[in-house]
Amino acid sequence: MTKHYVGIDLGGTNLKLGLVSAEGELLHRLSTPTESPKGPEHVLQRMADAVGEIAEGAGCATDDVAAVGVGIPGPVDTESGIVHFAPNLSCWTNIHVRESLETKLGCTIVAENDANSAAYGEFRVGAARDVDSMVILTLGTGVGGGIIQNGRLVRGASDMAAELGHLLVRYGGRLCGCGNRGCLEAYASATAVVERFRVEAGVSDLAHDPNLDCKAIFDAAYEGGDRAAARIVRETAEYLAVGITNILHALNPEMVVLTGGMMGAGERYLDEVRRAVGEIAFTQTRAGCTIQASVLGGDAGVIGTALAAEVFDRTGQLA
Amino acid sequence: MTKHYVGIDLGGTNLKLGLVSAEGELLHRLSTPTESPKGPEHVLQRMADAVGEIAEGAGCATDDVAAVGVGIPGPVDTESGIVHFAPNLSCWTNIHVRESLETKLGCTIVAENDANSAAYGEFRVGAARDVDSMVILTLGTGVGGGIIQNGRLVRGASDMAAELGHLLVRYGGRLCGCGNRGCLEAYASATAVVERFRVEAGVSDLAHDPNLDCKAIFDAAYEGGDRAAARIVRETAEYLAVGITNILHALNPEMVVLTGGMMGAGERYLDEVRRAVGEIAFTQTRAGCTIQASVLGGDAGVIGTALAAEVFDRTGQLA
Repeated sequence: MTKHYVGIDLGGTNLKLGLVSAEGELLHRLSTPTESPKGPEHVLQRMADAVGEIAEGAGCATDDVAAVGVGIPGPVDTESGIVHFAPNLSCWTNIHVRESLETKLGCTIVAENDANSAAYGEFRVGAARDVDSMVILTLGTGVGGGIIQNGRLVRGASDMAAELGHLLVRYGGRLCGCGNRGCLEAYASATAVVERFRVEAGVSDLAHDPNLDCKAIFDAAYEGGDRAAARIVRETAEYLAVGITNILHALNPEMVVLTGGMMGAGERYLDEVRRAVGEIAFTQTRAGCTIQASVLGGDAGVIGTALAAEVFDRTGQLA
Repeated sequence: MTKHYVGIDLGGTNLKLGLVSAEGELLHRLSTPTESPKGPEHVLQRMADAVGEIAEGAGCATDDVAAVGVGIPGPVDTESGIVHFAPNLSCWTNIHVRESLETKLGCTIVAENDANSAAYGEFRVGAARDVDSMVILTLGTGVGGGIIQNGRLVRGASDMAAELGHLLVRYGGRLCGCGNRGCLEAYASATAVVERFRVEAGVSDLAHDPNLDCKAIFDAAYEGGDRAAARIVRETAEYLAVGITNILHALNPEMVVLTGGMMGAGERYLDEVRRAVGEIAFTQTRAGCTIQASVLGGDAGVIGTALAAEVFDRTGQLA
C-alpha cells in the first residue's frame, strides 16, 4: 500500500484540498465551501468529510491517507496544533485542530500557518527546491511570509516568525489593518494598491470605477499607458523592495519567491521589483539572491502542508 | 594539559585579546595597538605575536592554545577564513586570515564577523545563555548585528546575514555611510545621534560644542533637562524600535541584546527603547521577547570568537 498525504488550505471562503504523494506530487484536487459562519466544529467536520471525499475521488481508501496537514490563515502553535486565532474565520480562537481531526480521522495531523506551508511547498518541490535558505512573500489581499533557514521553517519563539507583511517599510506611514502604521501590507497588498490609487491618482478615470481592482490598475499601467497607474505600480515595487531589502540584509537568503494573486502581473512587475531591490540592497547580498515567481502557484500551500504532515508522520519532527 | 582558546577582537586601533577556557571563562586579557597602516601582513604577525604574549602572561605555553578565533570588523567567508574587506583597516581586501595564522601559530584558526562573535559570546555564556534564539545589536560608532537561531549563528548564503545596521527604518531618510538612505545606522549609531542633534537641535548651546559626543547628548537629556537633547534621544529610541520591531516580526526571537558604547546610557535608554517597541510590535511577539543589555559588555566578542574556535577545533563545525 502506497501512503498518501492530504494538504488542506483552510480559506475564509473555500477549503482547498490536495492528495499528495510522499514525493510531493499533487495527485488529486478538491474544493468545497468552508461554511465558516457555522462555526469551528462545523468546519472541522467538513474538513474530515472532505478528506474522505478526496481519497474516494482518487480511488483510494481513507485508511491510505497516512497524515493530513492543515494550512491555517493565522498563527498556530505547531507543537500542540492549536490555532490561536484566524481573523478571517468566524469564532476561531484557541481551536484544537490537531486533537479534533486526530479523533475524527485517526491519522497524523499537522497544523501549520498557511504562508509557512507555501514556503515549505516551494522549498521541497517548487522554485526553491535546490536551495537551503529562502523567503516567500504571498502578495494577495494581505501580505504573508515564510522563511526557510538551513532546510527548516523558521517559526520563532512563539510561532509568530515570518510576519513579513508587517515589516515596517515607511516610518509613520499608512495605517495597516493590524493597527500599526507603515507596514508592507499597507503598501504592497492588492487591497493597498487599490486604496493608494484611489487616494493618490484622482485625475485618472480609472480611480472612479467602483469595481476597480488591483489587476485593472496593473493592466492600465502596463498595457493602457495610464501614467497615474504606472506611478502607483512603480511605487508599489519600491515599497516591496524596501521589505525585501530588509529581509536580504537580515537573512542573506539564496532565494526570495513571490507568489499570490498580485503575481498575475507577471515578469514585468517582477523586473520592476528586482530593479528596485538592486538600487538599495548590498550588491553582494543581492547578487547571491534569486528573486523569482513561485513555481507551484496556488498549489504551494496544499503541497507544502501535506509534505509537512509526511515529515511529521515519518520522523515525529516538525518540518 | 588543559586546553585554552584565544579570542582576538581586531579593531582599527587596538587588538584586544582574551585567553578563554573551554567553558567560556575569560582568564586573561591583553590589548596592543593594531598598527593597521603598516598593512595586513604586519597586523597578522602582530596577532600571532600577541597570542604568544597572552599565553606567556597567563603562565601557559603557546602550545596550550588549542585554537584562536579572530573577530573581524567586516564580512568574512567563514568556510575559508578569508576577509572580503574591512572598511576600517588599511588594505584589508581578500586577506587569508585562517591560512596565514595557521602557518604562523600551527593551531586551529577561525575568522568570524565581530558582531556575530559578540552574539555568540552572549548566547553561550552571557545574557542569552538560557535561550535558543536571540539577536544582538551593537550600538557604537556604527550599528552591527548578529542572529542566533536554534542555537546556531545565522550567516546566510554568502556570510552577509545580520547586517542589521542596514535595515531600512525610514523610507528615503538620512544618507548612510553605505550609500543608502534611511538605514538604522544613520539614525541610531552614536555618530548619527551627534549629527542629528547638530542639525535638528540648533537652539541648544550644546549643539555648538565642537567636541560634542553622544554621551554628552544623553547626559543632557537625562540629567541636564535639555529638551532638545531629550527629543533627539527619544526619536533615536523610536528609530531603534522600528529596527527591533522588524527583527521581531521576521524572526520572533526570545531575546534582543543591546550592546556597544551607547548602552553606557543604561537602563533609562533601554526603557525608552522597550516602551517604543511595545507601541509598534505585535503584542504576543513582544511579550515573548526579552530586550536587555549585554552581560559580557566589551568582552562578548573575544569570548564569543574564542568559543567559536573551540567548537570548530572540537567538532570541525562552524558555531
